[in-house]
Amino acid sequence: MLLPNKKCMRIDIISAVPQLLKSPLEESIMKRAQDKGLVQIYFHDLREYGQGNYRQIDDTQYGGGAGMVLMIEPIDQCITQLRSERSYDEIIYMTPDGKTLNQKICNALSLKENIIILCGHYKGVDQRVRDLFITREISIGDYVLSGGELGACVLVDAIVRLVPGVLNDETSALYDSFQDNLLAPPVYTRPEEYKNLKVPEILLSGNFAKIDEWREEMSYKHTQERRPDLLNEN
Amino acid sequence: MLLPNKKCMRIDIISAVPQLLKSPLEESIMKRAQDKGLVQIYFHDLREYGQGNYRQIDDTQYGGGAGMVLMIEPIDQCITQLRSERSYDEIIYMTPDGKTLNQKICNALSLKENIIILCGHYKGVDQRVRDLFITREISIGDYVLSGGELGACVLVDAIVRLVPGVLNDETSALYDSFQDNLLAPPVYTRPEEYKNLKVPEILLSGNFAKIDEWREEMSYKHTQERRPDLLNEN
Repeated sequence: MLLPNKKCMRIDIISAVPQLLKSPLEESIMKRAQDKGLVQIYFHDLREYGQGNYRQIDDTQYGGGAGMVLMIEPIDQCITQLRSERSYDEIIYMTPDGKTLNQKICNALSLKENIIILCGHYKGVDQRVRDLFITREISIGDYVLSGGELGACVLVDAIVRLVPGVLNDETSALYDSFQDNLLAPPVYTRPEEYKNLKVPEILLSGNFAKIDEWREEMSYKHTQERRPDLLNEN
Repeated sequence: MLLPNKKCMRIDIISAVPQLLKSPLEESIMKRAQDKGLVQIYFHDLREYGQGNYRQIDDTQYGGGAGMVLMIEPIDQCITQLRSERSYDEIIYMTPDGKTLNQKICNALSLKENIIILCGHYKGVDQRVRDLFITREISIGDYVLSGGELGACVLVDAIVRLVPGVLNDETSALYDSFQDNLLAPPVYTRPEEYKNLKVPEILLSGNFAKIDEWREEMSYKHTQERRPDLLNEN
């Protein structure tokens, strides 16, 4: 059940292939966040704004070259429709040449109220869409995907789990990797010994002050070995 | 129809929440790649290897602290089962403290034959799983997600689209961002003029040599403005 209220975050995702978005955003934690009324996520099928009998949404690019380009008119119509209903804090375009997503951007976006996310597909969108409407361009990493849909799922998951109430206290996001520029320490669970591999004794000691110290030390060591670049940020 | 043959890539994904993987990997380009017999993707529900009547797969962590940890035994059983059927080139663990994914890693992985991808969930997996089985740890970026499933989808999409035959010639991956350490140039499609915004004249000129030159220049300029770090790689 969705109970819209002022604190409920709203995310509208515009896509040429909205069926790709379904399972990551309609199951598990994302489902529970929506069921609790903490966030509303809507998918908008670009084809519903397509032109002519064939509901055209893409065309070949000017100047020649491989790959189709999403046209400006259907996107304009969809965004204009949404904006006529409420105001938006951000209109984000998912694209490999956008700003690389990190935890700080996720933290900032998790405080917004209404967000539109536009997914590129094929060769991308007409540059004029970016010039006219987009407030922020985001890339989830230095690799190319078959469309912006997975990027949108990643962005939504990363920000929605930071909305207060979405995670239980138990799984609080505060202790995750990156929140303090450190990687998480190793974790162990039952059994104590498995095929001659034992859990570190300190974790069985019951001395929680020492355990905290050990974890901090492991975090730091782990970060220094794998991601020394994180230690230089502040 | 799947026609297994030596050139068909096989990807086995092990997850506590396999339903999250469905739509990104069973629709659009990923579906067509499987229909063409170019790749086989299998989901393995960790719970099927769970222990006791409740099919337990996770437990609290030693030393106290928030969050559940995936146990080693069910994962061992699943991996051992798969390995008894064929040999694997890589057993990859998706985790925020892994090596950051980039296009070079995707290119390399797209040449492999059999890959297992293990998705972390909750607080992660027992460290001994990583010590015993994992050949590569990969992170899709410096942000935390609610599980490794979206990471696995991103990784699979990024590598499968590089498998020869998956994309049409038309949408060849060679001209994408990152393949040559440059970001893609802007693209435009019809109409020529939209709300006073015009397509750059050069693209309408029909002079393809000049158009190529312009695109290269724009790529370079765009990369210099947004991602000068890419120009320093080689």
